[in-house]
Amino acid sequence: MSSIYGETFRISTYGESHGGGIGVVIDGCPPLIPMSEELIQIELDRRRPGQSEIVTPRNEADQCEILSGVFDGKTLGSPVSILVRNKDARPSSYEEMSQKYRPSHADYTYDAKYGTRNWQGGGRSSARETIGRVAAAAVAQEVLKNLYPKIEVVAYVKSVQGLEGSIDTDSITRAEVDANIVRSGDPKMVDPMIDLIKKIRGEGNSVGGIIECVIRNCPAGLGAPVFDRLEADLAKAMLSLPATKGFEIGSGFAGTMLTGLEHNDHFYMDGEQVRTKTNHSGGVQGGISNGENIIFRVAFKPTATVMKPQATVSKDHQDTELKGRGRHDACVLPRAVPIVEAMATLVLTDHALRQRALVGDSK
Amino acid sequence: MSSIYGETFRISTYGESHGGGIGVVIDGCPPLIPMSEELIQIELDRRRPGQSEIVTPRNEADQCEILSGVFDGKTLGSPVSILVRNKDARPSSYEEMSQKYRPSHADYTYDAKYGTRNWQGGGRSSARETIGRVAAAAVAQEVLKNLYPKIEVVAYVKSVQGLEGSIDTDSITRAEVDANIVRSGDPKMVDPMIDLIKKIRGEGNSVGGIIECVIRNCPAGLGAPVFDRLEADLAKAMLSLPATKGFEIGSGFAGTMLTGLEHNDHFYMDGEQVRTKTNHSGGVQGGISNGENIIFRVAFKPTATVMKPQATVSKDHQDTELKGRGRHDACVLPRAVPIVEAMATLVLTDHALRQRALVGDSK
Amino acid sequence: MSSIYGETFRISTYGESHGGGIGVVIDGCPPLIPMSEELIQIELDRRRPGQSEIVTPRNEADQCEILSGVFDGKTLGSPVSILVRNKDARPSSYEEMSQKYRPSHADYTYDAKYGTRNWQGGGRSSARETIGRVAAAAVAQEVLKNLYPKIEVVAYVKSVQGLEGSIDTDSITRAEVDANIVRSGDPKMVDPMIDLIKKIRGEGNSVGGIIECVIRNCPAGLGAPVFDRLEADLAKAMLSLPATKGFEIGSGFAGTMLTGLEHNDHFYMDGEQVRTKTNHSGGVQGGISNGENIIFRVAFKPTATVMKPQATVSKDHQDTELKGRGRHDACVLPRAVPIVEAMATLVLTDHALRQRALVGDSK
Amino acid sequence: MSSIYGETFRISTYGESHGGGIGVVIDGCPPLIPMSEELIQIELDRRRPGQSEIVTPRNEADQCEILSGVFDGKTLGSPVSILVRNKDARPSSYEEMSQKYRPSHADYTYDAKYGTRNWQGGGRSSARETIGRVAAAAVAQEVLKNLYPKIEVVAYVKSVQGLEGSIDTDSITRAEVDANIVRSGDPKMVDPMIDLIKKIRGEGNSVGGIIECVIRNCPAGLGAPVFDRLEADLAKAMLSLPATKGFEIGSGFAGTMLTGLEHNDHFYMDGEQVRTKTNHSGGVQGGISNGENIIFRVAFKPTATVMKPQATVSKDHQDTELKGRGRHDACVLPRAVPIVEAMATLVLTDHALRQRALVGDSK
Repeated sequence: MSSIYGETFRISTYGESHGGGIGVVIDGCPPLIPMSEELIQIELDRRRPGQSEIVTPRNEADQCEILSGVFDGKTLGSPVSILVRNKDARPSSYEEMSQKYRPSHADYTYDAKYGTRNWQGGGRSSARETIGRVAAAAVAQEVLKNLYPKIEVVAYVKSVQGLEGSIDTDSITRAEVDANIVRSGDPKMVDPMIDLIKKIRGEGNSVGGIIECVIRNCPAGLGAPVFDRLEADLAKAMLSLPATKGFEIGSGFAGTMLTGLEHNDHFYMDGEQVRTKTNHSGGVQGGISNGENIIFRVAFKPTATVMKPQATVSKDHQDTELKGRGRHDACVLPRAVPIVEAMATLVLTDHALRQRALVGDSK
Repeated sequence: MSSIYGETFRISTYGESHGGGIGVVIDGCPPLIPMSEELIQIELDRRRPGQSEIVTPRNEADQCEILSGVFDGKTLGSPVSILVRNKDARPSSYEEMSQKYRPSHADYTYDAKYGTRNWQGGGRSSARETIGRVAAAAVAQEVLKNLYPKIEVVAYVKSVQGLEGSIDTDSITRAEVDANIVRSGDPKMVDPMIDLIKKIRGEGNSVGGIIECVIRNCPAGLGAPVFDRLEADLAKAMLSLPATKGFEIGSGFAGTMLTGLEHNDHFYMDGEQVRTKTNHSGGVQGGISNGENIIFRVAFKPTATVMKPQATVSKDHQDTELKGRGRHDACVLPRAVPIVEAMATLVLTDHALRQRALVGDSK
Repeated sequence: MSSIYGETFRISTYGESHGGGIGVVIDGCPPLIPMSEELIQIELDRRRPGQSEIVTPRNEADQCEILSGVFDGKTLGSPVSILVRNKDARPSSYEEMSQKYRPSHADYTYDAKYGTRNWQGGGRSSARETIGRVAAAAVAQEVLKNLYPKIEVVAYVKSVQGLEGSIDTDSITRAEVDANIVRSGDPKMVDPMIDLIKKIRGEGNSVGGIIECVIRNCPAGLGAPVFDRLEADLAKAMLSLPATKGFEIGSGFAGTMLTGLEHNDHFYMDGEQVRTKTNHSGGVQGGISNGENIIFRVAFKPTATVMKPQATVSKDHQDTELKGRGRHDACVLPRAVPIVEAMATLVLTDHALRQRALVGDSK
Repeated sequence: MSSIYGETFRISTYGESHGGGIGVVIDGCPPLIPMSEELIQIELDRRRPGQSEIVTPRNEADQCEILSGVFDGKTLGSPVSILVRNKDARPSSYEEMSQKYRPSHADYTYDAKYGTRNWQGGGRSSARETIGRVAAAAVAQEVLKNLYPKIEVVAYVKSVQGLEGSIDTDSITRAEVDANIVRSGDPKMVDPMIDLIKKIRGEGNSVGGIIECVIRNCPAGLGAPVFDRLEADLAKAMLSLPATKGFEIGSGFAGTMLTGLEHNDHFYMDGEQVRTKTNHSGGVQGGISNGENIIFRVAFKPTATVMKPQATVSKDHQDTELKGRGRHDACVLPRAVPIVEAMATLVLTDHALRQRALVGDSK
């Protein structure tokens, strides 16, 4: 279903950018996992608007409320329902959009699919929708830690347009990433990236880039053959995010330039542990994690909302023009970092519980 | 589940490379669709080994048998079961592999996940597994044609290592692609690509590349918001194929170098039809098709099987060495072309039936 | 998943009897269906406590709020989220239950399954959970009417303990049923049933009975062979309700006393329509509706909460005694009638959309 | 989907009574479970036709072949595919049925649903379809034993029409049941039941009855709240079997005659174990097993095929007459016993693996 994700840890999200609120219901959450609104709020605060001078000024506290599934500070095993109210609604800002399709937005395709749409601020296609994912992942994260205490999921901005950082995937931490407002993985690129985003925004324009994510200390054995390969589920999870246009794992597209002899990751014993000398595979072989770092990259296009007049068509099929309005991010990447981590966490948690169903705790 | 795909047109595949056979069961196939073993065989023949001098010489007729779900030349609405027997089994060729993990294959990860594996020829991780997908897609294709007679799904080899073709996505046909053994989309690149593959194979080495796929005449409205975006499901479908490392749609990774003003696809009226002047979106906006060509690319790594000794470890965790044996493709791309089309067809068919559930035939 | 139901019209419910609230998210709801809080409230009011002198006095307005998925009075096609707050919470009434297992309640089994439970008022096992189902069914009902305007789902109390009504399944209406507080289908049994329930309640005791449901004007062709037979899905839906112990369709258990010659429903032509002379099948043959009235019965055990001391054990595994407390229904049947209709409606709606996916609007 | 069952241990069945064969694919089967064609054949032999003088003489060896998922006598973790060929096909016997709808069969409803049907021997609606379920359950049984070595699932004929046996549910064994050809649970009823079936068959008539099933040593904690209650899933599983009209658990319909004080099952400590003094709940409370015997009953109508002329209609909607032909069971109950056990086993196995996903091996 379009708003349900996961097989064993299954989340059902809902909500338009304007209306009662945004939320998620989690079915299949294990019991006795420590949980509170505070724990969830930490992650929501990492994605919320208005965090810094380079993101949208939309002022939403995005305060969550746990409606069910938690009792005495722990999960019950019953569905965990989390609600975030919409607060700063200004539907009048969007009235022109009710009649004209914003270029490279989802206005036209929603109308084509459903014959209707909530034109206030993007409705279901608004990036606000990702609140449900981040809230669910905040719960998933505790489930995952409970199973694999050492697992780490760290994403960061790898590049903004042509500005590319250099990152040590073995050591980078969330704290380091969150320490700068652009969430660059490379301290040297922080200022150039901020300058670029400000410049682009000043021009009423927008810019995209690449987010990279590393998962460390993932045990070997997560994932599955055939359709639900770990990289396939990660690809789906990432391409399900607004504004994404590409996904690659390990050597990715560049790997097509290597030969097999160059690309193959040779195994060796590192004490008791099977390791590979190189990691072109990106931590996944045959759809299953091999214990090495899982490393993938996601391409985000430049934000579709720009502050210039653009040619477009109206709902009643006339050529017309539309100038972008409303609050927006000139570059979505800083706020997308915790969302990429959230989706990776949901994929891992679902596969971890599936693996436990299959072989028990022994693995 | 790992070997089940689709929500409404749901396929369940099975089979190891050695053993009784490979097959698929399709649940949710509409009734009264013309169907026969001949129709399925056409697609199986496009993927089978031994087609030309540049692919694996493994000699499998891959003859299919319809076990159920078809009567008097049409589907019944009940599950369609299709079986392809394994014929040319030489398990003795693989005995060394029972003890040693082939680098960049799935031997180690299967053992890590399941505590066991069928080491004969790769077992479930063998590319032979894709027979089930291609057979299912041959049925899906007829379902899809029945709904949208003009839809076309055409894939082709875009590049082999550094050799990249130039293709007109508006006109390229399957017949043109199948007319050359490398399935290059660009006639000028056929000979260079064949030469490169032969040279690489002669060196006991292997090579990868990129397959591009275009879907033409897809109606606007297929896909869904949030998790099951059309591009997300395509990404999952493609990354679920053996040897894939990346997926991009429309502008893809290169799109991150553009600004929003450059990237946005302006709408205009082309007679009665809403069109876009550019197609950086790749035919999908907000997860839903917009009626433009859907264009995506898939990165395939070089084949892991090479004919040189490589360092590795044994099942009992000793450092050792293994030389590739068995029959293999030095470049999987020519045979992967129909498989990419098959997966795209399965994604589209599932979404087409989901759309019919949601809004009926009117769309 | 335990709190998700449906394949195409999929609902995800949540909520404990005490805590933030009870609700549901509907994924797969068709767009442009008229919808409002008022429409949902009509059905919620039919199930809410405090309606009459013979049901629990728990005072809950059960006012619903639509959080998403509806815009300008119609569904959007995106998830419809509905929330009902818990109001009249008195957790202190339940403290004894935190330590002692109520006989024939779910206290012990929840602890056995999860290692924890929300002991306030039954938590997730409270009949309050059915609010989510009724709210979802209020939406489903509009979807179903949109597809089949003449379809009718009418349930009623067939018997309370030994008091059994006589009902004309061809004509009984919801209005007739709702016209009496016991929701008897037979006006002559209203007073005897009310008297029995009052007498039983006065004794601190409780009583069960049978609810019958008739579905009229269901088109032939809904349902499916094998696992998802219409009667199988109805059986699951009904046995998923609290306090149910049995389900039968058509001739049911009594049909086992007939021979095949007596039981078979002969076909005949009624003008253009295929009809059966008898309806022992209960409107379903081979798992698929045949156009006759679908008639089934559901057995409800006497309410487990009684106002007498009963032997039981404590959470720390000591024999002990517990006297029922809290507000409860001495007979759940009057309030269960709209819930049975709700579950039947959800089953039909899901199958109706599945049928549309399979064969389009033509059927 | 109509032919897919289970959430974690998921089976996909296929096959018409005439055509290539009947089979099943199991996805989600744990690895390293001992498995062979012999183990599966034991269960298939218990359901196959021609076993005794009171069942259909259709002569099918029903020999199974494992096509995948098993290696060196153990499951691999990959899909287990099992095929049983159809052998004794006599489609010509059924030609009249291509034009006329057999009363109380699925001929008409299949045509209404799909616009087509395989009229040879019932096609997908034939009881032969249950081969796939029994084969899958033979695998499930080994998985379940591996998790809970002491669990026992024993079904038996409780009644044939008015002849009802008296059974000790604590002690009855499969061996005792299989020791008589009618699979009566009560040795004293064997001869009367056989005599009745023979008499009825001699009259060209048919007869139904009730199968009861007891599950012993099921641990507390299997099942789930809300939709997937253990009794709900059992009800669905049983009502998905051909010819079933009713399901009840524990006190069932008779329980509606008791008051709460009579019906409630008081807890007490039996050494370390929480037990109930009575078992009106039938081993399930709040949808979750409580460790007591799970006891349920299934009503089977008399076989629809009778050897007398009956009024019916033709495919082109004319009133007509049809006399039953073909081989059939005058009473399906003896052969239905292993099928009831099979479905119960599938339900338990799926819930057992779901419970392992949720809380690990500790439960």
